[in-house]
Amino acid sequence: MRHDERTAEMIRPVEFVKDFIIHPEGSVLITVGQTKVICNATIEEKVPPFLRGQGKGWITAEYSMLPRATHSRSPREAAKGKIGGRTMEIQRLIGRALRSVVDLEALGERTIWVDCDVIQADGGTRTASITGAFVAMTIAVGKLVEEKQLPVFPVKDFLAAVSVGLLEEGAVADLDYVEDFAALVDMNLVMTGNGELVEIQGTGEEATFSRSQLNDLLDLGEAAIQELIVKQKEVLGPLAAEVGIQTGGLA
Amino acid sequence: MRHDERTAEMIRPVEFVKDFIIHPEGSVLITVGQTKVICNATIEEKVPPFLRGQGKGWITAEYSMLPRATHSRSPREAAKGKIGGRTMEIQRLIGRALRSVVDLEALGERTIWVDCDVIQADGGTRTASITGAFVAMTIAVGKLVEEKQLPVFPVKDFLAAVSVGLLEEGAVADLDYVEDFAALVDMNLVMTGNGELVEIQGTGEEATFSRSQLNDLLDLGEAAIQELIVKQKEVLGPLAAEVGIQTGGLA
Amino acid sequence: MRHDERTAEMIRPVEFVKDFIIHPEGSVLITVGQTKVICNATIEEKVPPFLRGQGKGWITAEYSMLPRATHSRSPREAAKGKIGGRTMEIQRLIGRALRSVVDLEALGERTIWVDCDVIQADGGTRTASITGAFVAMTIAVGKLVEEKQLPVFPVKDFLAAVSVGLLEEGAVADLDYVEDFAALVDMNLVMTGNGELVEIQGTGEEATFSRSQLNDLLDLGEAAIQELIVKQKEVLGPLAAEVGIQTGGLA
Amino acid sequence: MRHDERTAEMIRPVEFVKDFIIHPEGSVLITVGQTKVICNATIEEKVPPFLRGQGKGWITAEYSMLPRATHSRSPREAAKGKIGGRTMEIQRLIGRALRSVVDLEALGERTIWVDCDVIQADGGTRTASITGAFVAMTIAVGKLVEEKQLPVFPVKDFLAAVSVGLLEEGAVADLDYVEDFAALVDMNLVMTGNGELVEIQGTGEEATFSRSQLNDLLDLGEAAIQELIVKQKEVLGPLAAEVGIQTGGLA
Amino acid sequence: MRHDERTAEMIRPVEFVKDFIIHPEGSVLITVGQTKVICNATIEEKVPPFLRGQGKGWITAEYSMLPRATHSRSPREAAKGKIGGRTMEIQRLIGRALRSVVDLEALGERTIWVDCDVIQADGGTRTASITGAFVAMTIAVGKLVEEKQLPVFPVKDFLAAVSVGLLEEGAVADLDYVEDFAALVDMNLVMTGNGELVEIQGTGEEATFSRSQLNDLLDLGEAAIQELIVKQKEVLGPLAAEVGIQTGGLA
Amino acid sequence: MRHDERTAEMIRPVEFVKDFIIHPEGSVLITVGQTKVICNATIEEKVPPFLRGQGKGWITAEYSMLPRATHSRSPREAAKGKIGGRTMEIQRLIGRALRSVVDLEALGERTIWVDCDVIQADGGTRTASITGAFVAMTIAVGKLVEEKQLPVFPVKDFLAAVSVGLLEEGAVADLDYVEDFAALVDMNLVMTGNGELVEIQGTGEEATFSRSQLNDLLDLGEAAIQELIVKQKEVLGPLAAEVGIQTGGLA
Repeated sequence: MRHDERTAEMIRPVEFVKDFIIHPEGSVLITVGQTKVICNATIEEKVPPFLRGQGKGWITAEYSMLPRATHSRSPREAAKGKIGGRTMEIQRLIGRALRSVVDLEALGERTIWVDCDVIQADGGTRTASITGAFVAMTIAVGKLVEEKQLPVFPVKDFLAAVSVGLLEEGAVADLDYVEDFAALVDMNLVMTGNGELVEIQGTGEEATFSRSQLNDLLDLGEAAIQELIVKQKEVLGPLAAEVGIQTGGLA
Repeated sequence: MRHDERTAEMIRPVEFVKDFIIHPEGSVLITVGQTKVICNATIEEKVPPFLRGQGKGWITAEYSMLPRATHSRSPREAAKGKIGGRTMEIQRLIGRALRSVVDLEALGERTIWVDCDVIQADGGTRTASITGAFVAMTIAVGKLVEEKQLPVFPVKDFLAAVSVGLLEEGAVADLDYVEDFAALVDMNLVMTGNGELVEIQGTGEEATFSRSQLNDLLDLGEAAIQELIVKQKEVLGPLAAEVGIQTGGLA
Repeated sequence: MRHDERTAEMIRPVEFVKDFIIHPEGSVLITVGQTKVICNATIEEKVPPFLRGQGKGWITAEYSMLPRATHSRSPREAAKGKIGGRTMEIQRLIGRALRSVVDLEALGERTIWVDCDVIQADGGTRTASITGAFVAMTIAVGKLVEEKQLPVFPVKDFLAAVSVGLLEEGAVADLDYVEDFAALVDMNLVMTGNGELVEIQGTGEEATFSRSQLNDLLDLGEAAIQELIVKQKEVLGPLAAEVGIQTGGLA
Repeated sequence: MRHDERTAEMIRPVEFVKDFIIHPEGSVLITVGQTKVICNATIEEKVPPFLRGQGKGWITAEYSMLPRATHSRSPREAAKGKIGGRTMEIQRLIGRALRSVVDLEALGERTIWVDCDVIQADGGTRTASITGAFVAMTIAVGKLVEEKQLPVFPVKDFLAAVSVGLLEEGAVADLDYVEDFAALVDMNLVMTGNGELVEIQGTGEEATFSRSQLNDLLDLGEAAIQELIVKQKEVLGPLAAEVGIQTGGLA
Repeated sequence: MRHDERTAEMIRPVEFVKDFIIHPEGSVLITVGQTKVICNATIEEKVPPFLRGQGKGWITAEYSMLPRATHSRSPREAAKGKIGGRTMEIQRLIGRALRSVVDLEALGERTIWVDCDVIQADGGTRTASITGAFVAMTIAVGKLVEEKQLPVFPVKDFLAAVSVGLLEEGAVADLDYVEDFAALVDMNLVMTGNGELVEIQGTGEEATFSRSQLNDLLDLGEAAIQELIVKQKEVLGPLAAEVGIQTGGLA
Repeated sequence: MRHDERTAEMIRPVEFVKDFIIHPEGSVLITVGQTKVICNATIEEKVPPFLRGQGKGWITAEYSMLPRATHSRSPREAAKGKIGGRTMEIQRLIGRALRSVVDLEALGERTIWVDCDVIQADGGTRTASITGAFVAMTIAVGKLVEEKQLPVFPVKDFLAAVSVGLLEEGAVADLDYVEDFAALVDMNLVMTGNGELVEIQGTGEEATFSRSQLNDLLDLGEAAIQELIVKQKEVLGPLAAEVGIQTGGLA
């Protein structure tokens, strides 16, 4: 039994508030336990210089935390004048993950920006960001299709992420801040609706782990991600049925 | 009649959600029409270098907008590596305004940071930030008093702010984005519970205004601010009664 | 009687040295008491990106102080690698004020840069900058008209600025450094030749002020600004007669 | 058979030049195929602020590429004024990996800086950096022990890293640039002498992978890393025998 | 005969305005032809970290040009957020030159900052800065001696600088902007009152020069510098007699 | 006799490793005593904005030191976020020197970037960089000629550099770190194959020097540079014969 009475494989309560912010093409507030992230998707009708003229789209993400999303206040990166290494890692991860389930040729020469702003943090902010970002992006893409700007729905499969970790007591899914702090091994998994891996990042800070422990973590992660995808389908409603249909999925 | 059916002197619906974020010492979400700002107050048990050893506290504010708080996406200041002039002006204004109603000697050698993060913008974000920041700060100060870290409640009076402006049709209070864009003269007013001015910033961008127009704007602003202070008292509840009592107010 | 024997409404001696620097299209050294500012105007035959193709001009200002313009040495902003909040506020204010008296359509697609460099400071540097910048800009514009690059003289009215403030002893005009430091309320006023307000910025740092005190300050400011405009007319000579003639003024 | 005639499991020729640079406490040039990295370890007799007074040491790494380490020239990060996301990710990874095999309490209050400078790149620069950095760090630590500044040899186990990846033709170990560019899935593995995992980072950019493919990649990586550790032992000579002895290894 | 009717060895008219700015410990405006530089010296009662506790002083210089000191406007370094290579070279040169004629032990643990701000440029701004900086520094040092904060006058000799160059027509002294632009070889010389060299910087951009041409340039420079030192003595008045007396000069 | 048994005029052993790095168009490792610099030349088929459309090429250099090239570790300029004054001076010097021996019209509208990365430092890194950079550049240019992209070999003469200095014991050539640290006067000389000067930079930090001492230093430098050019000819082999032939040298 964990400190908050969950079993090893249980994830925290997950909730999505659709259209949380009125301006973006896609907007969702994702709540995972006490972690809350605003995910806003913006469509921009051009691509970065390295892609121009290739008939291909791009998806990029930015991630930030409000200074007081955490227990004690952290200075703003804008005030420090530069983005830290942790932030960069996370925003690269989110963008890469989203791109893995979108047919960028089908998207056409446009960019989807997904902004993930953590307003309250209690562990798992990067994985909640990915899970929420997928929903915001899919809503935005849905509008493009509805407005006939896209002939084909370019999202090939669902995508969600979860953290798993090794505590003294064993492997657990969806760590909160207290567990994350105590974990010997911390792993973030990103997977698709058809159970394929997109990203695995496992780290033993001042610790190591065996192949068999790795497998326990993967088992927990797989199950948790499928639960999250069920929730994504609920919030997306009819849009969920479009995912993967026209692109033939990830086949 | 204005485009949203308000009369010249009407302000938009105002709402406060107390304890919106769980970690800060004081937290409030202020909603003014479609403008939404998270105001979080943090107590830090030290003062900036220029104040050390003087037995006096400090209050400072930071202001930011989510990239998609606005109609089109604005790049993050962290990504640009520097804080823009508009942001600096606003955060200096908020801090100055809050300091005008706090007895800094009574606060003791500590700093109150107030973070105002606009998650959705529709005009009046700086004035909503001040009005919300006052509430967040007062809650945080209330905790210090309750925990007996402060013998005296150092907030001397209420403080709220509103924008007023001159449209082609005449002077109006609490402009939304559409009106703000059209205004010939834009003015921000910060006032206290006893009707004193703390800050007046009136600007005619490519326009000018007369003393009599100034007076019309001041009249509208005064009334609007007193309405806002009524709402602040409601959300602060019993804490409201502490304001100004022990310090003798602004006398 | 004030510490330098002025009465409440007296401004300090004001002097302009025209063509102080040989290279700029317009150049003036303004001296207000011990405050000295070099104001240089540059004509650039293009506009910033946001204005391109609109047939409209732009006016922008930059402000800086020499490190030893002040009693003790302040580090250069170039050495710190960024421009501070105070500098940004001031340069935005100067630019906005100048734009309020120029017909930007009549100016055509060009930018006027006005550089205000304080070489010696004794209070009122931002208002002296505005008053001097107006003269430098008008000289530069005069050359464009003389060279037939402009069919119409696009300056619609005179423009000057002064600081007024509330001391313990009452309201005074044109504060020097000693008075500025002691002031309870500090206000900067920018007005035109026809007595209209362009900008009012009044601030009570750790203090407040009433409507009636505001009116006293405005009365002092109005009178002071009209005195400054008399001096501007003297230094501009025949050019002064061109101001407002062809554009029909600020009507 | 791969484009350079290796089989799937073969790594490229590996070579270490010990004491490549004369000044550092530990220095090695590691060559893996055409990839060449100078790894220099520096001992500094203090720790970063967050560790002061805890009797614990720290290990940190910096990574850079010469502009012309690559096929075409990349601008210097110093010239751009900031460190990119990829560089930050890599230097965080190297530092974290090294810390996992060192007893930081036994190291005492000192920092080991390991600089990894890629002078020639042909894929696998981050894993070559880790493998070389371990050698440079161990040499530097050996000097501290020899000079009796450390009573115990604080390195607990060997550490090396390799990249593995999924090509159209299947899983392969130690990808060069051409293979890396073509890979569907790219994975970096860091493991210890006793076969434990320290870090796994697997990424499908615009692709995904199954659990069974993951297992193939892990099998290849494990074997490759044990080969690299054999080479590390050769170059370390007698020092190799000290690793893990006094600290009881990673038990 | 040169374009401005000077002979090869003639320098332009030189003038010093002492106490040009009221706040600094030493202030002078130097005018060389149309080049004008404000040189302000500040005494700071501490030294940079690398000198602390060594009983030795330091002299450092900063150099800047107003944006419109030149024919066309150059952007401010503060606005660009960094100091350019040319500025850095010049401020390092000025500081180094001044230090060569001051007994830093006799100066004690204090820093002299010399700010050289070019308000109007017509060639030779760096050499005019050195010649003016020497005067400002000597005045500031004179005050320290007068106030008995220094037992000994620590300036060992006079110091001035001039540019010399090779035109198509031959070697000339004190180039103005037009000549500087046309010069095949550009050389800056810094020398002392006793005729010793402190700094020689000769550069053939897309050109070269012989030993014999170098000697011609040195001859011109030596004579010009002795003329400048005569002017420095005039402006320094009685202070001039203190230079070198107590320290035994540069012997 | 010097501390390393050289006579005053002896330079340290010099060695070139051609094609040290495989990717660049020209690459050489230059070793001068214990100083080692990797010099890589890159051809880019465009010129900087200020040269576009003039049918002329450009040569530019960048210089850096590995953090542990020196006795103690120096922080990276990329980590500090800006390039220091010393680095800027050196890279401007290298670029200027190279341009003096190349016919930029004959080079055509392309840029040669020469990167000089000091991997081990023991004095004279900037002069070794110039001497090595000339070789790397000439190899790169040779490839352009060989590939018929250039009709004429645009290098007009050889170019090398050396440091000379004044020790207590007298003038010496090619100072190592220990001598450099002790030197009263430090001078860098850049000369061509035909014995012309390209650059002279002599500095007395807290010291001065006479014309006769300057001449001693120049004599030593001239001889040393001719020795270095002999070595350059050896490493360049047949390419050496092309230098200056078609352009008529520096005549």
